[in-house]
Amino acid sequence: MSPAVTDENHVGADDTTPIAKRILIGEPLTSEELEGQLLPKKMALPIFASDALSSVAYAPQELLMILLIGGTAFLTYSPWVAAAVVALLVVVVMSYRQLIKAYPSGGGDYEVARTNLGEKAGVVVAAALLVDYILTVAVSVASGVDNIISALPGLDAWRVELAVGFVVLIILVNLRGVREASTAFAIPTYLFIGSVMVMIVVGLIRWALGDPPIAESAQYAVKAEDLSQAAMFLLILRAFSSGCSALTGVEAVSNGVPAFRKPKIRNAQATLVMMGSIAAMMFAGLTLLALVAGVHYAENPCHLVGFDCTGAVQPSLMAQVAAATFGGGSVLFFIIQAATAAVLLLAANTAFNGFPLLGSVLARDGYAPKALNTRGDRLVYSNGMIILGLAAVVVLIVFQAKLTTLIQLYIIGVFVSFSLGQLGMVKHWRRELRLLSPKAAAERRAAWSGLVINSLGATFTIVVLVIVTITKFTHGAWLVFLAIPVLSFLMVGVHRYYRDVEHEITMDDDVHFGATGDVAIVLVGKLQKPVAKAIDYALAARHDKTFAVHISVSPEDTRDVQADWEYHHMPVPLLIIDSPYRQYAAPLAQFITQYRQKHGSSVVTVYLPQYIVGHWWESVLHNRRARRIAQQLMLVHGVQITLVPWLLDSTELIYGRRSRPLPGDDRAGRITSYGLVAHTEDET
Amino acid sequence: MSPAVTDENHVGADDTTPIAKRILIGEPLTSEELEGQLLPKKMALPIFASDALSSVAYAPQELLMILLIGGTAFLTYSPWVAAAVVALLVVVVMSYRQLIKAYPSGGGDYEVARTNLGEKAGVVVAAALLVDYILTVAVSVASGVDNIISALPGLDAWRVELAVGFVVLIILVNLRGVREASTAFAIPTYLFIGSVMVMIVVGLIRWALGDPPIAESAQYAVKAEDLSQAAMFLLILRAFSSGCSALTGVEAVSNGVPAFRKPKIRNAQATLVMMGSIAAMMFAGLTLLALVAGVHYAENPCHLVGFDCTGAVQPSLMAQVAAATFGGGSVLFFIIQAATAAVLLLAANTAFNGFPLLGSVLARDGYAPKALNTRGDRLVYSNGMIILGLAAVVVLIVFQAKLTTLIQLYIIGVFVSFSLGQLGMVKHWRRELRLLSPKAAAERRAAWSGLVINSLGATFTIVVLVIVTITKFTHGAWLVFLAIPVLSFLMVGVHRYYRDVEHEITMDDDVHFGATGDVAIVLVGKLQKPVAKAIDYALAARHDKTFAVHISVSPEDTRDVQADWEYHHMPVPLLIIDSPYRQYAAPLAQFITQYRQKHGSSVVTVYLPQYIVGHWWESVLHNRRARRIAQQLMLVHGVQITLVPWLLDSTELIYGRRSRPLPGDDRAGRITSYGLVAHTEDET
Repeated sequence: MSPAVTDENHVGADDTTPIAKRILIGEPLTSEELEGQLLPKKMALPIFASDALSSVAYAPQELLMILLIGGTAFLTYSPWVAAAVVALLVVVVMSYRQLIKAYPSGGGDYEVARTNLGEKAGVVVAAALLVDYILTVAVSVASGVDNIISALPGLDAWRVELAVGFVVLIILVNLRGVREASTAFAIPTYLFIGSVMVMIVVGLIRWALGDPPIAESAQYAVKAEDLSQAAMFLLILRAFSSGCSALTGVEAVSNGVPAFRKPKIRNAQATLVMMGSIAAMMFAGLTLLALVAGVHYAENPCHLVGFDCTGAVQPSLMAQVAAATFGGGSVLFFIIQAATAAVLLLAANTAFNGFPLLGSVLARDGYAPKALNTRGDRLVYSNGMIILGLAAVVVLIVFQAKLTTLIQLYIIGVFVSFSLGQLGMVKHWRRELRLLSPKAAAERRAAWSGLVINSLGATFTIVVLVIVTITKFTHGAWLVFLAIPVLSFLMVGVHRYYRDVEHEITMDDDVHFGATGDVAIVLVGKLQKPVAKAIDYALAARHDKTFAVHISVSPEDTRDVQADWEYHHMPVPLLIIDSPYRQYAAPLAQFITQYRQKHGSSVVTVYLPQYIVGHWWESVLHNRRARRIAQQLMLVHGVQITLVPWLLDSTELIYGRRSRPLPGDDRAGRITSYGLVAHTEDET
Repeated sequence: MSPAVTDENHVGADDTTPIAKRILIGEPLTSEELEGQLLPKKMALPIFASDALSSVAYAPQELLMILLIGGTAFLTYSPWVAAAVVALLVVVVMSYRQLIKAYPSGGGDYEVARTNLGEKAGVVVAAALLVDYILTVAVSVASGVDNIISALPGLDAWRVELAVGFVVLIILVNLRGVREASTAFAIPTYLFIGSVMVMIVVGLIRWALGDPPIAESAQYAVKAEDLSQAAMFLLILRAFSSGCSALTGVEAVSNGVPAFRKPKIRNAQATLVMMGSIAAMMFAGLTLLALVAGVHYAENPCHLVGFDCTGAVQPSLMAQVAAATFGGGSVLFFIIQAATAAVLLLAANTAFNGFPLLGSVLARDGYAPKALNTRGDRLVYSNGMIILGLAAVVVLIVFQAKLTTLIQLYIIGVFVSFSLGQLGMVKHWRRELRLLSPKAAAERRAAWSGLVINSLGATFTIVVLVIVTITKFTHGAWLVFLAIPVLSFLMVGVHRYYRDVEHEITMDDDVHFGATGDVAIVLVGKLQKPVAKAIDYALAARHDKTFAVHISVSPEDTRDVQADWEYHHMPVPLLIIDSPYRQYAAPLAQFITQYRQKHGSSVVTVYLPQYIVGHWWESVLHNRRARRIAQQLMLVHGVQITLVPWLLDSTELIYGRRSRPLPGDDRAGRITSYGLVAHTEDET
């Protein structure tokens, strides 16, 4: 235990932290412990790669599903479409290798676009990325739940509840901090890679030996739509767009470079290439195996002739391939499904690394609320995590955790940031080439190769963005097209606001000291001990003038206060202010304004006695009047508010809620006998 | 417009009230305007009687529905069951006439039970009444919506949404205050009484002339259950219990006596008797007419052979009778349905008079949070209204606005308070008789007749309570049996809490003045103008010692603050306190505690600069750090918190949000040139 916590005189944040928070989230960490939280490569792979790798759990399925709309004959196009996706993946991975080298600070596409294309491009990329992170969580969790239900169809009725439950779980795991999360996440990611690879190899060997695995759905015919030539072409493009969901998550590494151990850049690049290679192999292998096994996966399973479309659950493509290869009830089938579900849920975790980090960068740059740049007890950006989690829960509930609908929204944002990031990199290399001296041959060669790679990347991703936009817009992507500009405008507005406030409060020659005219007003409702304490403390400060004010709402109460005042010989005069509308702050504000008009612009200190309670429910039983009065009086010029706490006995019930009284303090925080200062006065 | 509002120097509550609130709720009223808000009889009838009268819209239906479970043959019992209900109604009305006379303060059954049977009985009655008020709103609104849907079956899909919408509407109407509500409510209530009376008379005359109205449902046969003799008897008792829902709302008048014009007691009594007579006539007439018309209303309409039980909406009994009498598409049919729906919605309004009044009485007696005894701008107990409305919305959503389910919950609470109230009255009269001198013959006669009437009332209501409990317990009434004790325990707990706090804070000989050792600490994050203002104001108070404290969370920030401090020649010393866990309050609290241990138990004033913003959304953009620090520091003995507001420019954007600066104040609330006091100093 840290010394600050064992120190008995220590009060405040630690002591008031509910035990539940400590158990769920863990002990607090000092700022120096940050370096120890950094990731070695073998841990960084599962953390940052689970998003990109897990995409192969849904990308082949969505690709084949779209082609199947045109009928089983269309499936012959799928190897070509899959090959295009893999080619794109290779280009994008190469492009991001360049980006990591050039911008290793973790700002990723946002930083690249902002630095090279200007503020507006940066804000748009940031907005696109924020939307993406939310959708990553939603899509991954929805697909994970889908795979769980494929293995255990009885859970179908709880689809949305399961999805929301998993998001909450992921939030809690992440609030504990990044390294512990990584340890817990490494095993399922490696299990997923291993088991799916084994499945692909076994399946393809069986095929080569003339005993191919056959999926149950191979027997179903398809009610194909009648398509024109143009529609057929569009369908192939749509299938390609959906297949591009395999690329989502590739950018995760570039946004997480600061979390890597040194040498950060090389480790991050190696992780990226490793991840890209594995993803490409798995995507190609799974698509091929699904074709071999004759998997028929339909957007609406009722279009499958022979499928019991009212009762039965349509298993995911992964489940169908696994069942065909290993048998539906086999241990290996359940291992594959469990690993797939686990890695998808962990993919959601990628966003819980990226979103808060981007949020803190945005907050640092003044584009997002400062609260996003505050590390919590466990050194993670807690606020960002909570916002991301809540947003994902809302998306999951609104779209009822339906994977195919969510995928439509997903890919746009990814390719907006891809494209702007790559464009920024193109500009970056061109500037580098301008600035480098013609003698620096090695650097020039590197810059040239960077320029070529990123130009290729930019061209490809822009073309795909156009295709995705055309093919997905009416299928829900318009929502993302609305969200990105709205978020961008908000961020620009926040930036402008912070700039104005900063301008307003920066120290300048206008600052000088010498406020005078020191008046104290103690607000009195009923004459009770808390009021007496406030008067005692006000007198201790020896203001120029001190008097009590009672706002008269009911004549009886006022008479009582006046009588008590005389009876107890209170040492300050009592003023009565009438309030026919039963307001407290307004008449007092008016009185203060008039007083200052008459006596010059003095500093008026208003003393408000406040109850401090031990339990949250006690606050329901006390009027929050003092707090509301304070809020309104603070709008009056020259006023400051002094809150004089009265610690009710119940504050003691909870260990450590209040400090130990010194000799001379009483339980309620009053000073009853006088310490050194008082003794000195006694002697004179 | 009131003078306080036109006064330009006036700030606070009025000025900060959003315009929307004024439009929805109206201009504020002074306490003196209370008398003008009182009700004449012809207005009190619709306000307080709508609950009791509207009961006839559902009571006959629920009565006949239960009997129909036993088959159409059972309907022959219905006149006898209805007669028993009417007899009970007469007894209860007579009993409440006595209660109004004896306890005219509006505490109703609660006050009677508390005064005569002790605290516990009073608390139980209060709990029962609170539950009842919530269910009154839920049942009335559900039945109102039911009647709307009977006329416009297309709205069936929006049943719950309609119900919730109406509750919200009623909340808003009531927040405007009681008299305006009454004016709006008088017309539909009288229309309801008139149109239903006309319908009964027309129907019965047609019957007498040999041309009885025939309901459409008369043609449906009933799938009757096979019943044993005991079950048959129980069924008749259940029907009687459900019919007793006609009595709900009779107590409303006794709880609302203070809202009547003088002579309050006689006016309230007359209103009660008028209401009882009308209710009895309408209940008997409607039941009879429904029998004549052969209305078959089933709990589950699928039990009606021939009824399209998947698609069609089963019209309410009122709608069926009206359709039989006047024709389903006739104008009179729609008038009856509209008036019924309106009066049912207004019945919900009764609870909005009773619940807040009872809440304020409970708060005054210390059994409920004090906030319930605070009148809002419009002289109504706003908090009680909002709690009632929200609770009713929850009940409506949970029970999906299903009338028959809600009725099961409803009657228990009503008869718990009836019974305990009547028992209390019996005890009241017996005590009166003991205390009255034998010579006061008239008083003794009155007391004897009171005793007889209330004994009868007590006996009847207790018997009915037992019947209702036996027949409804398994049908959902157990929920109410759970809610009443839980609420009772809560109220007793609240009472104990207030008593303890009162004991703790009452002035006694222990109170004395003379706190000393006056230290001021200004908390500094960054050196900006708000900090400079806080230092300026702290210096104005001329504390014994004043110094600034910076909590060091990041070394760079600390270096910046120290450099700025020197550069701007700040007039107080700056102390740095390290905080490795990034906490603010805890290290400061520790520092203060140690300081006081060393220097004696001094008063420590902590100055916290606070931003005041103009828009709610701006607060998202500022850390709430100052507020959180204040909350934790107030737990430290000897500490008081001074909040120094910094008015950001945006506070000016909203008219009147901040006071006009005087000559000498700057826009942010600083004092920049010195008024009279400063001038005096210049002269010396």
